[in-house]
Formats: sequence, structure tokens, C-alpha cells
Amino acid sequence: MNIVDIIAKKRDNLTLTKEEIQFWINGIMDESIPEYQSSSLLMAITLNGMSKEEIGDLTEAMMYSGDIVDLTAIEGIKVDKHSTGGVGDKTSIVLGPLVAAAGGTVAKMSGRGLSHTGGTLDKLESIEGFNVYLNQQQFIDVVNQVGCAIIGQSDNLVKADKILYSLRDVTATVDSIALIASSIMSKKLASGSDSILLDVKIGEGAFMKDIESGRELASTMIGIGQHLNRDVRAVLSNMNQPLGNAIGNSLEVIEAIDTLQNKGPKDFEELCLSTASIMLTQAHVVDNYEEGKRLALETLRSGKAFEKLIQWIAAQGGNIEQIKNTKLLPHSKNQLTLKSKQAGWIKDVLAMELGKLSMHLGGGRQKVTDEINHGVGLILHTRVGEKLNIDDDLITIYYDDEILSQERIDEAYDCFIYSDTPVDKIEMILETID
Amino acid sequence: MNIVDIIAKKRDNLTLTKEEIQFWINGIMDESIPEYQSSSLLMAITLNGMSKEEIGDLTEAMMYSGDIVDLTAIEGIKVDKHSTGGVGDKTSIVLGPLVAAAGGTVAKMSGRGLSHTGGTLDKLESIEGFNVYLNQQQFIDVVNQVGCAIIGQSDNLVKADKILYSLRDVTATVDSIALIASSIMSKKLASGSDSILLDVKIGEGAFMKDIESGRELASTMIGIGQHLNRDVRAVLSNMNQPLGNAIGNSLEVIEAIDTLQNKGPKDFEELCLSTASIMLTQAHVVDNYEEGKRLALETLRSGKAFEKLIQWIAAQGGNIEQIKNTKLLPHSKNQLTLKSKQAGWIKDVLAMELGKLSMHLGGGRQKVTDEINHGVGLILHTRVGEKLNIDDDLITIYYDDEILSQERIDEAYDCFIYSDTPVDKIEMILETID
Repeated sequence: MNIVDIIAKKRDNLTLTKEEIQFWINGIMDESIPEYQSSSLLMAITLNGMSKEEIGDLTEAMMYSGDIVDLTAIEGIKVDKHSTGGVGDKTSIVLGPLVAAAGGTVAKMSGRGLSHTGGTLDKLESIEGFNVYLNQQQFIDVVNQVGCAIIGQSDNLVKADKILYSLRDVTATVDSIALIASSIMSKKLASGSDSILLDVKIGEGAFMKDIESGRELASTMIGIGQHLNRDVRAVLSNMNQPLGNAIGNSLEVIEAIDTLQNKGPKDFEELCLSTASIMLTQAHVVDNYEEGKRLALETLRSGKAFEKLIQWIAAQGGNIEQIKNTKLLPHSKNQLTLKSKQAGWIKDVLAMELGKLSMHLGGGRQKVTDEINHGVGLILHTRVGEKLNIDDDLITIYYDDEILSQERIDEAYDCFIYSDTPVDKIEMILETID
Repeated sequence: MNIVDIIAKKRDNLTLTKEEIQFWINGIMDESIPEYQSSSLLMAITLNGMSKEEIGDLTEAMMYSGDIVDLTAIEGIKVDKHSTGGVGDKTSIVLGPLVAAAGGTVAKMSGRGLSHTGGTLDKLESIEGFNVYLNQQQFIDVVNQVGCAIIGQSDNLVKADKILYSLRDVTATVDSIALIASSIMSKKLASGSDSILLDVKIGEGAFMKDIESGRELASTMIGIGQHLNRDVRAVLSNMNQPLGNAIGNSLEVIEAIDTLQNKGPKDFEELCLSTASIMLTQAHVVDNYEEGKRLALETLRSGKAFEKLIQWIAAQGGNIEQIKNTKLLPHSKNQLTLKSKQAGWIKDVLAMELGKLSMHLGGGRQKVTDEINHGVGLILHTRVGEKLNIDDDLITIYYDDEILSQERIDEAYDCFIYSDTPVDKIEMILETID
């Protein structure tokens, strides 16, 4: 077998065999295939695509390029959830305790934030003492004891993806459904969960800009699940405005806590209940989504989900006083609330731009080595479809710099687009695919 | 400017600007752009193509990545000729003296052979003392004195092409009209000729398998000529059987000498006269191709072209006794003539396979560092469309090994495909494009 022939085959839009795909991944791992050959193949895959079979084979080959997490010591069906990355997405922090309190088991490995998207690990580290680096036994123990845990992904998971991802980043081959799907799924499958719920974000603030490409990505990942015998389902959710009102690390933890105390934003609560209902179905706790939604709502309203949050945070070493009294969580030194300069209906709230603004305030990373400032961020006071008058509250900026530059203020104002005529509210969940 | 954005642009099938193309070629030359980025861009170009404008800009950027040969010291319009590579192609050895004897000026830089295609330099080096390494002044002097010269291309010509070509070879990005055309034309244009005649080979023994792709390549190269204000024309000629009867180095020189003495194969003579007529038009010696063909034929029949050959070979240091008496040229120790095992019409003579057989006998190179054996090769005794009886002569193998293996003999037989019904002869020139 010869890598030039394999590249030529994909260039000519032919289908690669399982053995050819394995040969490539092996060659990446033992460095017998140089980067210039992989990047040529990556571009051919980006332009010509891959069949369902090829994507399954690629995912499997990548999955076995590193450690495989063995979670068989955890009782019951373990459900994982993965979001393709949005702005203000603190869903996992709610879903872990919510699903666990309702009788499911959530063993989740998560990542850190980059660019405009935050990372669940960074957010959780706003809580004093919270340890995202449990070893495998500790992880299993916490899940068995509490019903949920969230830790950082092991560095030894899916080694081929690390190599490929850094190559894709510098060769304009990131935007490929086949490569995105196999990258996400190889990591999820190597993490050892039995079932996976994918939250595919669609819209201006997401990687997938339109519902068609989101649907294609979701179906592709579900296809990988079928190929490897896992129960994978997906929701397509709207990212045409930030999720909830809070963007930033401790601000998002507070919003998650509020939601678990039944005082969170309605659209965010709705997404949590809908995704929880699917996860509870995947966990065989309930028979269908309607039952799941009833159970999730009941669990939330009864306060059991919040109790579970306290147990979970404690089990991972976090300071639960900060959960009980969120004023004890990190807060920025300064705050500035911007007022609306005009009247009208809010047509767009630019999620990606707000994500970048939060990053520029110190709440996110431009490069992986950047430090996170947990206290800074943004709180929105309006949503798409709402009517504002002049001087109504628009957004509060939480910042630590001595002076907030006019540039940042202008950036914040530019994220709100007005209309003279009424605008519909945004539907949170666009579609469920299973 | 940023190479990832440039790759993304080509990936998205957008048009690159002159500055972006120049940025890429500069980055290749100063090594600021790594190979993995160039190979990704090469694949995007291979799959999405380039506009006429982009190809012109790429050719120009490549052309200036090395030395530019200044031939202004040569009087008159200098015409060059380039073949895209065939089997048995000794046309340049005839055209140099033929066009020069008719009043044209041919200042040609040529290459060496690789794989199934031979190289004019290797063939000329069959002649004792012939020097393909004239310096620029010697080259100009020979052309001014004789009217023609053929030398090896300087290593400092179009440096970007060397880098790109070796990368394309290992990344399955050789088969791109845009990249082939810019590679050929950048070298031709840097070689300093005023006008260029392209002989685009079409068929089983050529890189271009069908007339459509050959026509596309020819038009693309003519377009580059327009972009850079040069008179570029093309013939599409048939490579569905070897050109002439001889394959191998001294065997091809002998066939060229025979042709200049009016005893060469008719189809090869026809190609020489047709291409000479175009070159004489480009050189403004005649007004049109018909006049050119008459003049070329007259020059050939009168013996003036052969006289010019003697002058030229002498001027480049070659032993003219070997030209006057071709028995003095290198000959292989052994010869074996294979006889037809069946009767019928010859439908196909597989040029590429015969080219490879000659290479395996020692007449060509598998890798650039291989030595050439000038005496070995093949002489065909039949052409497509001829009727053969059992035991008629098929092919003579000139070899130096002690024993000719049965494998080689079988390979030779397999190159002749028979038909039970009459087959048309092959048209030599398929099309002229200007």
C-alpha cells in the first residue's frame, strides 16, 4: 500500500477502503507519512467528501490511535453529551446533576475553550477547589456515588486527532463534515460512554451557519454511531443569539446554578429540559421523550437537581459555599451597564462577536496557552424579539481593566441589531434527529 | 496576507489575485511557507482548477523564481519547441537543423528522460564528444554561427518549479492542467525564446490520454503566452503508438539522421515537416503554414538540412564521423528480432509499455540518478493498421545483458494488439491550435 495512490484515489473521488484509511492513520502515528502528504489528502477529503462507511472507518482508526477509557466499572447506561460549541453554553453544568437526579448516569469528558467559545472545564474551575483532573478510578467512583462527573479529557485520548487537528488548522481543512464528525466522534467513543447526545449548534455564533449543514453533520455523527453500534442522537439548537443571558466563566456557572434553582432564563431552561429528556430516554430511565421531559421538569422543580449539584461539586472537591451563595464566586472588579440608544425590536444579538468580546475581556483564550480570568464576562438584558425603549438596559460588561476602552463599548453596542417592526422570538430547538 | 486564507480561497473555488500567488511562490522560495501548506493548496488547485488569469500569474511568479536567460544577443526571432513527452520522440534533433537550414533560429534548452519517456539530452549524448553543457556565451555563439543549438537547462532556472514538482510528485497533484501548464511554460519562458511551438502528445503513451484534455492543456499554455506577450502555438499529435520506429538513445539519433537524409519513417517525417512549417511561420521566415511546409520539404529533400546537422553537431563538439556513418554510434552487444506469432491487422502498439521496456533494458531512468546505456533499445517493424502474417518481423530488441529474459520477450509481444478485421492507420497530427 502506498500513500500517493491513496491520495490519488480520494482526489479522483473514489472510496477508500478500511485498510487504506488505517494505513494513513498508522502512518501519521509512526510518522512514516509526512505532513505534506496528510495535508494533501485532507484537502482532497475536504473537497470530495467521504462516504458514511469511510467516515466510520476513519473514526474507528482514530479512536484506537490512543487510550480507550474503560467505564465498565460504572453501573448502568452511561450517557454523554457533546455540544459543537456555542456562546454562553453552560448546558453540561445543568444536565449532569439534572439527569443524575432523575436516575441517569452522566460520565462526561470535556474540553477547554478557544476563540469565541468557552469550555466547560474553564467554567467549572471558577469554583474554588473544583478538580477536573480526577484519575480514572476517582472518576468512576464519583459517577458511581453521585451519578455524574465531568473531567478533562486525557491527553492520551485519540492521539491522531491532535496531530490532524493542528494540521487542519493551518491548511484550511477544518471545514469538512467528514473530518469534523470523525474528530468529535472518535473522542466521544474513546471516552467510553454507551450513548451520546449531540447538541449541534446552528447559526451566526456557531461553526455550522445553516440548518442543512448542521443536519448533515448530525446525521454523519449518528451514522458513525450506527457503524460502531452506539446509541447516538442529536438536537439542532439555535445559536443565532447567545444561549441564556450570561457569557463568561463564573457568570455562566451562576446562571447554571440559577437554572437548577428554577430561576434561570426560560430559553436556556427549555434546552436543558429537552436534552435531558433525550438523555433519560437513552439511559432507559424513561421510554420516550415526553415522559423524559415530565420527569426532568419534576426533578428540576422539586429541588432534587440542585441538591445533586451540591453533591457533585463536593465530590469533585469544589467549595459548595460558593454554590449556595453565588456572591462568593469570582467577580470582576468593575461593571458597566450599557443602555439602549434607540427604541425598536431586537432583530439580532451577534453571538460570535459577544463571545469574542468576552474573550478580549480575558474570559477566553486566543491561543491555547492563554490564562483565563474567571470573573469577567457579559450579561445580556434583552433577547431577539424583545421591544426596547431608549435607556432600557442592554448589556452589563464585567471587566477587570482599569478603564473599559471605547472600542470595547462600541463592540458591545454593535452586537445588537434593531428593527422598526416586530420580530419573532427565536425557537431554541430546531430539530431532534435520532 | 496569510497563506491559510489563500488556501481557503482556492478551496472555496474563488480566484486568487496576482499578489496572493506571488506571496505563495515567495513563501516557497524563502521557506516561510511549509510544504504541508503548499501541498494542501496544490490539491485545492488540482481539484478546483485555476482561471486563465491565475495560471498566467502563477507562471510569471514561477518564471522569476530563478535565472532568466537573456538571448537578445542572438539575431532574429528565436523559436523554441517543447514536447509534452512521448515515446520515440526524436523530433527536436531533426527540427533544429531543419528549421535552421530553412532560415529560422532555434535556441533550445532541453531535459533528460525519466520513466518511459526519453530525453533529448540523453539521446544527443550518444554522439561522442557532444557537449550539452555550453555556457550562455558559447550557446549564443553556436546559435549565431549555425542557426541552432540544444543545451541542458540551467539548474538555476525556475527554482520554484523544482520544489513544487518534487512536492506534486509525492502528493498526487501532478495531474492538474493548471500546474502542468505553468510548470512547462515558466521554464520555456525563462529560457529566453521569443516564440514557442508546443507538441502536445495525446494517447496511450502520453500524459494526456484524450484529445479534450490535450486541447485544454494546449489552450491553457497558449493563454499563458498571450498573458506574457509571446507567440505560442500548439500541435496535438498522436501518441497511440511510438513516434517513428526507433526507441532508445543512439537508435533514435540514427532515425533522426536517416530522416534528415530522406530515409526516415513517413509518419515521423510528416510530424517534422508540419511542426517545422509552424516554427518557420513563427520565425517570420514564411507567411503561412503551407509556404512553411513547402520550404521545409525543399530544405529536407535538397540535403541542406543534413548539412546543417553536421555543422551543428560539430559546433557542439560531437564526432561527425558518427553522423556520416551511423554504424560508429553506440550499438548494443546483442539483438533479437521477434516474429509475429499470429496473422492479422495491428490495432494497437502500446507506446508506454515499449517505453518502459526500453527503460528496463537500460535505455532510460527509473530514478533521476540512474545511468543511461546509449546502445540499447527497440526497433519496431510494424505500425498500427498494417497487416502481418505469421513469422513476419515484429520488433528487434537491442540489449546488452548476457541473456534476454523470457519476461522481457513476453513484455515485448504484449505490446502488439491484433485485430481480425482491417484497422485504419493513425493520423499523426490531430489538430493545430494557434
